[in-house]
Amino acid sequence: MIGHRAVTSQDFSLNDLCGSTGRLDVLLRCINSCFFLSNDIRRDTVLYLVLQGKPDAPKCLRLVGSELRYLNPDERSTASLIRNALIKFEEGKEVMSSPGIYISRRSFLDILEELAKPGSLFYLKENGKPFSEDKSIENPVFVLGDDKDLFPEEEEMVISKEPHKITLGPKSLHADHCITIMHNILDNIY
Amino acid sequence: MIGHRAVTSQDFSLNDLCGSTGRLDVLLRCINSCFFLSNDIRRDTVLYLVLQGKPDAPKCLRLVGSELRYLNPDERSTASLIRNALIKFEEGKEVMSSPGIYISRRSFLDILEELAKPGSLFYLKENGKPFSEDKSIENPVFVLGDDKDLFPEEEEMVISKEPHKITLGPKSLHADHCITIMHNILDNIY
Repeated sequence: MIGHRAVTSQDFSLNDLCGSTGRLDVLLRCINSCFFLSNDIRRDTVLYLVLQGKPDAPKCLRLVGSELRYLNPDERSTASLIRNALIKFEEGKEVMSSPGIYISRRSFLDILEELAKPGSLFYLKENGKPFSEDKSIENPVFVLGDDKDLFPEEEEMVISKEPHKITLGPKSLHADHCITIMHNILDNIY
Repeated sequence: MIGHRAVTSQDFSLNDLCGSTGRLDVLLRCINSCFFLSNDIRRDTVLYLVLQGKPDAPKCLRLVGSELRYLNPDERSTASLIRNALIKFEEGKEVMSSPGIYISRRSFLDILEELAKPGSLFYLKENGKPFSEDKSIENPVFVLGDDKDLFPEEEEMVISKEPHKITLGPKSLHADHCITIMHNILDNIY
């Protein structure tokens, strides 16, 4: 997931997540959607957030469901964990800032090259096809934007990996809602 | 929707929504799920939140999609709108605190009696059946709890209305995620 303007330093206010963070709030809600079950965490999910905002882009947060601790469902406490990761960032290596949360210097292209295996990439796009059951895909990778669609050059990178373009329905939805729905589709298939 | 311990006065901190509000934060996320589309509001949705916490329960918030204004997706700003409603509460009538947000003294039973028409009531329950398409239901009403299941006496009230018991999948989910998924199911049917 790309945070097009999401802040890349710890200098933001927990009291103004919507206004002071380049819409980091959108990503915080996506973290919630990715990992929370009722009284449990989705341990088989990994989320990569590429922060592309000022002042020191790109930075990549990697959240690993099987290792996560101290994650609560509210936006503010999650923002606090992310701020902690930005504080602990070190050039040249991936740092674990709290259990299950890692930060490093990596771009969207770096992540795409690392994760996109032939046939496993899904690009959520309003003009895509409905997701169809295909149990042969063992580790599907989903790409989505924040409150902005992917930029043309980002979309080109994705398209070059020959993704499945999928849509979830007739309405245009927030990113966190897409994640919730996609999880539910997968829950009902696997 | 029932907020079993959700605060019924304006005396809470916007900086501690998880800790100081009887889990009002759960309801705030449900407001987001109920109403937000990408760049639009679900104008055909109405949400009733019954607050049953201290110090002055019950209070009922009614949010009307077709009238809503000033609603933003983040938890904190929504909490501010709800606090404003609690400030403007008046005994003996329903007050509009901001466009599309109303507050009154009404209990869960009051709301159930008002809304539950034969065949139109859906109770989201882990042991229910999958939702099946039935286009004859024009105004479906969905009942769900917050982070707690309905209490036995609340469940009895619901059961007395002969609801359809439905489940969304094999996993136990947060209330706001249930709303997002249910909306998506309805989007794809209607």
